[in-house]
Amino acid sequence: MQKRVGQYLMDAIRSVGVDKVFGVPGDFNLTFLDDIINRDDMEWIGNTNELNASYAADGYARIKGISAMVTTFGVGELSAVNGIAGAYAERVPVIAITGAPTREVERAGKYVHHSLGEGTFDDYRKMYKPITTAQGYITPENAQTEIPRLINAAINEKRPVHIHLPIDVAAVNIEVQTPYQYTAPVKQDVDSYIDIIENKLKNAKQPLIITGHEINSFGLHDKLEQFVNQTHIPVAQLSLGKGAFNEENQYYMGIYDGKIADEQIKAYVDHSDVILNIGAKLTDSATAGFSYKFNLENVIMINHHHFKVDELRDEEVRLADLLDSLLEIDYTADVSYPRYQLTNETVELSDEPLKQSTYFKLMQQFIQPKDVILAEQGTSFFGAYDLLFSKDNTFIGQPLWGSIGYTLPATLGTQIADKQRRNVLLIGDGSLQLTVQALSTIIREDLKPVIFVINNDGYTVERKIHGESAPYNDIKMWDYKQLPFVFGMKDTEVKIRDVTTSNALATALNEINQTPNMMHFVEVHMDVHDAPEKLDAIGKAFAQQNG
Amino acid sequence: MQKRVGQYLMDAIRSVGVDKVFGVPGDFNLTFLDDIINRDDMEWIGNTNELNASYAADGYARIKGISAMVTTFGVGELSAVNGIAGAYAERVPVIAITGAPTREVERAGKYVHHSLGEGTFDDYRKMYKPITTAQGYITPENAQTEIPRLINAAINEKRPVHIHLPIDVAAVNIEVQTPYQYTAPVKQDVDSYIDIIENKLKNAKQPLIITGHEINSFGLHDKLEQFVNQTHIPVAQLSLGKGAFNEENQYYMGIYDGKIADEQIKAYVDHSDVILNIGAKLTDSATAGFSYKFNLENVIMINHHHFKVDELRDEEVRLADLLDSLLEIDYTADVSYPRYQLTNETVELSDEPLKQSTYFKLMQQFIQPKDVILAEQGTSFFGAYDLLFSKDNTFIGQPLWGSIGYTLPATLGTQIADKQRRNVLLIGDGSLQLTVQALSTIIREDLKPVIFVINNDGYTVERKIHGESAPYNDIKMWDYKQLPFVFGMKDTEVKIRDVTTSNALATALNEINQTPNMMHFVEVHMDVHDAPEKLDAIGKAFAQQNG
Repeated sequence: MQKRVGQYLMDAIRSVGVDKVFGVPGDFNLTFLDDIINRDDMEWIGNTNELNASYAADGYARIKGISAMVTTFGVGELSAVNGIAGAYAERVPVIAITGAPTREVERAGKYVHHSLGEGTFDDYRKMYKPITTAQGYITPENAQTEIPRLINAAINEKRPVHIHLPIDVAAVNIEVQTPYQYTAPVKQDVDSYIDIIENKLKNAKQPLIITGHEINSFGLHDKLEQFVNQTHIPVAQLSLGKGAFNEENQYYMGIYDGKIADEQIKAYVDHSDVILNIGAKLTDSATAGFSYKFNLENVIMINHHHFKVDELRDEEVRLADLLDSLLEIDYTADVSYPRYQLTNETVELSDEPLKQSTYFKLMQQFIQPKDVILAEQGTSFFGAYDLLFSKDNTFIGQPLWGSIGYTLPATLGTQIADKQRRNVLLIGDGSLQLTVQALSTIIREDLKPVIFVINNDGYTVERKIHGESAPYNDIKMWDYKQLPFVFGMKDTEVKIRDVTTSNALATALNEINQTPNMMHFVEVHMDVHDAPEKLDAIGKAFAQQNG
Repeated sequence: MQKRVGQYLMDAIRSVGVDKVFGVPGDFNLTFLDDIINRDDMEWIGNTNELNASYAADGYARIKGISAMVTTFGVGELSAVNGIAGAYAERVPVIAITGAPTREVERAGKYVHHSLGEGTFDDYRKMYKPITTAQGYITPENAQTEIPRLINAAINEKRPVHIHLPIDVAAVNIEVQTPYQYTAPVKQDVDSYIDIIENKLKNAKQPLIITGHEINSFGLHDKLEQFVNQTHIPVAQLSLGKGAFNEENQYYMGIYDGKIADEQIKAYVDHSDVILNIGAKLTDSATAGFSYKFNLENVIMINHHHFKVDELRDEEVRLADLLDSLLEIDYTADVSYPRYQLTNETVELSDEPLKQSTYFKLMQQFIQPKDVILAEQGTSFFGAYDLLFSKDNTFIGQPLWGSIGYTLPATLGTQIADKQRRNVLLIGDGSLQLTVQALSTIIREDLKPVIFVINNDGYTVERKIHGESAPYNDIKMWDYKQLPFVFGMKDTEVKIRDVTTSNALATALNEINQTPNMMHFVEVHMDVHDAPEKLDAIGKAFAQQNG
C-alpha cells in the first residue's frame, strides 16, 4: 500500500498509543502537519512555544507511556532541548520530530533561514545526541527501518529520540508492506544474578527495597508490588519517582531522603544490611546531598542497564528482565519496620497568615484518590513529596532535572492525556513566570485543572541555597489572578480565588471539591521566607555541595 | 592584587563596555551573581526565562557591541541555546556564562540535579560547540589565559562564546598582575587582493556594492561609507543587515531582495558586471529564495573569513582588514543608477479596516531620526525592511535566524542598552505569545518602548507558505491590552490603544510622538490574510524551496 513517509510515521506513532501531538508550526514542517491534522484518530495541539511543547509532551508521556512532538529546524528544535534533556534524565519517552530543509537544499549547502548560514546542516542533530537515546535522518529508502528502530528505542529505553525529517521526504510515497509493529527485545537470562540476590537476602538482618523513577518509566508497579507481597521486604521510596510503590501497601515505610527523613525510617534504612535498589537513583536532591548513612557496599543496584552486586556488574541488562526474575526468589522477610502514617490531628484553622506547613496539611486532605498531582520543583515539590497518596494517584515532579517552569506545560500534557482524572497543579510565582503562556493552551483546549499558585515574592527555593534577600531572587509582582482572562477565558469557566489564611484555604478547597467541572485558579499568599522544612534542609545541603 | 575568579571575569567583561548582565539565577550560579550585584558599575537584569535572557543579551549587544548573560548548569544553559545560535548565525557577540557544579562534584561523577543523572558533565558543553565561536572551562590556573582568549574571540568574531564556570572556581582567589585588556589581531596584508579588485573595477560597466549584516556586527559603517564616497559605486542593501549603509547617502540605491526588488534596482543589480559583496550573505530570505539573476562569477565576496574573487579564496582574512585596504583603491565610478525614494503621496486615511500597506506607510512617517526599530520576523519585518531610515536609526530584525518571539525580549536589551533612544517594536500576536513574559522585565526595569502588536489571528507568515486556513496556524485569542497591567504596570505609566482603522492609527501615532515619556502599547487589528506584498512573494518562494 502506498503511503507518504509522513503518514507512515504517524501511523506508527498512533499505533503505540499517541493520539495528541504537540508542537509549533514552522515552514519546514507545515506540509507534514497536514498528515497529522487530516487524521481522525489524532489531534494537533499547537503550543505557545517549543519549550512548553516539550514539557507538555513529557507530561503526556508520563500518563500515556509515550508522546510525540513536532518542531521546525533550528529555531524550533533548539528551543525544545531543555525539555527533551529533562525527559532523557528522568526517562520519559518523547518522540521529537524536526521538520527540516529538503535533501536538495542540504546537499547544495544553501544559506537558508534557520540555518547557521554556513552551509552546514548537521549541527542541531549533533546537539540532540547527548539528550536522546537514538537519532535518525529519515529518507524514503530508510523510513521503514529507521522509524521502527527509533520508536522501539524510545519504548525500550523510555527516553526521547530525535527524528530529523526533511520536509520533501515526508511527502514521498513509499510502498508499505507491513505497518510498524513494536517488537520487544529478547529476554535476558539473569538467573545467576538472582541466585546471588537470594543468598544475600537469606543472610540479611534488615533487608530493604529502595525504589524510584524507573518503575514509573517502565510501568513496573504491579511486578514490584507482587515481589514485595511475596517477600515482605519493606520499601522506602525516593522523592525521585514517588509513586513507584503503592503507598497503601503494608510494606511501604515512607519516603527516604537521607538525613532529613523521618527518624524511624532513617534508622531502618541507614542500618540495612541488604538493600535492593530497584529502579532508583541516589541523586543529591533525593538524598539531601548524598546524606545516606548506609554502606553502599550493601546495595544491590537493580537499575535499567545498571546491575551491580559486589564486584559483579552488568551494564546491558534490562530492568524488566531483572524484575521478572526477582519474582522467582524464594525468600520471605520477617522484620519489623516503621510506617509513615497520617496523624489524625485536625488542622487548626485561623485567620492568621497561611504557613507552608498548614498549606500542605490541607492539601493532604484535599487530594482525591485518582488525582494527578503535579508539584513544581520549588516549595511545592519539597512540601508535596511527603504527602501520602493512594494507589491510583499519580504524582509528577522533576527532582533530578529540576527545570523550573516545567509543571504548568506538563499539566497541559497530563490533563489532555486523560481528561477524566482531576489534575492538581502546585506551583509558585517564580516558576509560573517562565512558562506562563502554557496556561493559554490549557484554556484553548478547554481543560479544567485545579491550579494553586504560591505568591511568595520570588525564588524561595534559591533563597534557601544562597542570597536569602538578594535582588536576583526577587521577581516582578504580577496580577496572577488576571491571567486566565488575559488568555481568553470567560469568567463563567473559571473560578478565581485569593487565599491568605488557612481558613480561606480550607473554604476554597471545599468549594473546589464541590464544583469539579470548571477550572479553579487559586493564588495562595505566603511569606517570602517560609518554606517546607525539607526545603530548608535540602537548600543547606546544596549550598554545602557548592562550597 | 588578589581577586576572585568571578571578579576577574566581571572586571574583564566590564572593561569591554558591558554594564548590564542578563540571566536567571540558579543554584550553580548564585554565589557568583554576588560578584555582579556587588559592583557599582554593573547591573543584574533578572529575566523571566533563559531564552528571553539570550534574546535580550542579543539585543543589548546589537546596540552596545557586546553583551553578557549568566545561566545555571543544564536547565538554564539549554534553555538559552536557541538565542545563542541566533547570535552565532547573525554575528552578535554574547558572552554566555554557565555556573556549573564544582570540580569535585564533576570529578566524582555525582548524580546531581540538572545533570543527566549519568555521571557525565560535558554534554552541554558539547552542545554549545556548534553555536559558539569559542568555549572554555575555567579553572583558577587558566582563568587569566582562558577568559582573555574567550572575550577576544567574541570581539574578533562578533559571535557568542561559552564560559563554563564551576561555582567553586568563581570563588577562588587568584593573584591578578594585569587586568584583562583587549588585544586586536595583527593586520593581514591584503594588497594583492586589492590590486585584483581595482583592476576589475576599472573594467566594470555597471559596478555595484551589495552590503549586509557583517557591517553592523563589526561596526564598519564609517569605513564602508568612506569607500563609497571615494569610489561612487552605488550600493544595494540586503534586508539581512539593513542599516549597514547610510540610506541618506546619495549612492544608496535601496533594498535588493531578488526578484521582488524595485524594478529599477533589480535591473541595475541583476545586470551588474562587478559586484563587491561586502559583509553580506545571500540567504534565501534576503533574496526571495535565491532569485538573484546576476552572475555569481561577477561577485567578489568580501566577507569575514570569506574572501573570494575568481578562483582565489581566503578563509582566514578579516573583514576589517579588507575594508581598510579597499580605501586605498584608486577608482571612481561614473554610472547612473536608480534611487529608491519616498513618494510624496499623502496617505489617505479612512474609517475602513486598516491594511498592512497603509500601516507601513504611516510607520514611515512616524519613525523619528534616532529611533531604534525592531521588527519581528513576520508581517512586521517584511513590511518594515522596505522603509527608508535615516543614518542614525538602528533597524533590528533576525531574517537569517528567524526565530519568532525574538524581538520582544530583544527590545528589553536594546532599550536598556540606551535609555535615551526611543525604541519602537513592531510585532505580531503569534510571535508575542512565545516570549510574552519579557514584557514583565521591560516593565520591571521601567523602560518605555513603543510597542505595536498586530492582532491578525495567528501565524500569517506561515499561512503565506502553507496552510492558509489550517488550524495549526491559528492561535488562542488573547486580551493583549491587559498584558501591561497583569505584569504589574500602573495605568498612569502606560497608554494602551486599540486601533482598527487608518484614521485611528494616524491619531495614535501623533499622540505617541507628543507624549514620549511613557510606554505606549498599541493593538493593531488587521485582516488574517492581509500581508505586506513582499511577504506574499517570499512565502511563495519558501513553499517552492520545500517542494
